[in-house]
Amino acid sequence: MSDVYSYPASMRRLVNELSKLPSIGLKSAVRLAHALIEPSNSAAEELAGAIVNARKSLRYCEECFSLTESALCSVCEDDARSRATICVVEKPSDLISIERSGDYNGLYHVLHGLWSPMRGVEPSAVRINELAARLEKLGCVEEVILATSTTVEGDATAMYIANMLKDQDVRVTRLAQGLPMGGELEYADELTLSHALAGRQAID
Amino acid sequence: MSDVYSYPASMRRLVNELSKLPSIGLKSAVRLAHALIEPSNSAAEELAGAIVNARKSLRYCEECFSLTESALCSVCEDDARSRATICVVEKPSDLISIERSGDYNGLYHVLHGLWSPMRGVEPSAVRINELAARLEKLGCVEEVILATSTTVEGDATAMYIANMLKDQDVRVTRLAQGLPMGGELEYADELTLSHALAGRQAID
Repeated sequence: MSDVYSYPASMRRLVNELSKLPSIGLKSAVRLAHALIEPSNSAAEELAGAIVNARKSLRYCEECFSLTESALCSVCEDDARSRATICVVEKPSDLISIERSGDYNGLYHVLHGLWSPMRGVEPSAVRINELAARLEKLGCVEEVILATSTTVEGDATAMYIANMLKDQDVRVTRLAQGLPMGGELEYADELTLSHALAGRQAID
Repeated sequence: MSDVYSYPASMRRLVNELSKLPSIGLKSAVRLAHALIEPSNSAAEELAGAIVNARKSLRYCEECFSLTESALCSVCEDDARSRATICVVEKPSDLISIERSGDYNGLYHVLHGLWSPMRGVEPSAVRINELAARLEKLGCVEEVILATSTTVEGDATAMYIANMLKDQDVRVTRLAQGLPMGGELEYADELTLSHALAGRQAID
């Protein structure tokens, strides 16, 4: 905080709080603080209100743990969504990404984290047990799509869940790995190419 | 906002308010919003409080227009600071930068903007007239240091102020332009080099 030593106390406090946000360093925090205290910036009070309001209003869906303002989220409440498929994602923003594709009509399950021995996160710390309980309760799930990231932790979590479900009468799938749309072969890394080759499909 | 259409309303509102901040795009706003609504993140309420508190507590110094929580800022209140020099800066953070150098013991004058015909900002919209009034009121100022940026607008504003003060019995100076500390000649741009050459100094 040596950079801001001559600011008044309330400014230092604001800079300090802003710099706790992810990927906001001290320089960004000072710049944001200046914007927020600008007298003509009426949006600053709006922001403070929006933070308090969001923290008061938002909770996790009792069924799938995605964000909602009621007991159940809009997906779980929607009778038109198929109860036969559950798509498992790491975090609420991943759910939004899949919804944006417009190609999925089943339910979700948000883990809120990934199994990470490296960072000391146990499977029980993310909502994996809740997934097992939910499959039992629903009783009609035919497929569980593991849509965690293709990172070490994402893969490990997917394998852990697949292993947990292997004795149950449910199809467990993983999102296809391969070349991204518009991806040029020349710039694809070796691992992506191996996956693309291994997962190659017949053209009908 | 199409990216966040499936979020609950209070989340959309928070993302919307965050994306109004300078250099915070939609993706950053979503990431920040997720951090802010994280139930374990008690700093979120602190941030909301800090925003409200800063906007309530902070005002501009009646003399120099820098940030303060009282009528006068800590510099203007300090009897040990010389009243013979006024350093003119664009914004409060510039004042902090100069204070950090530890080499200045005079007063400041914060313009809160620069003269910019391109963006339709008149000299009267920044606190230039207040500077003239202040010089008259103080009556003891021997030097005005123009410490605006070395940009087109910063230079234009400095020239405007120098012209305004040319009939007064006061020395008007501009911060030296030249190579920055640790600057390699090889990477210096032409304009910086011209200024460095033109401002070259005899070694005693």
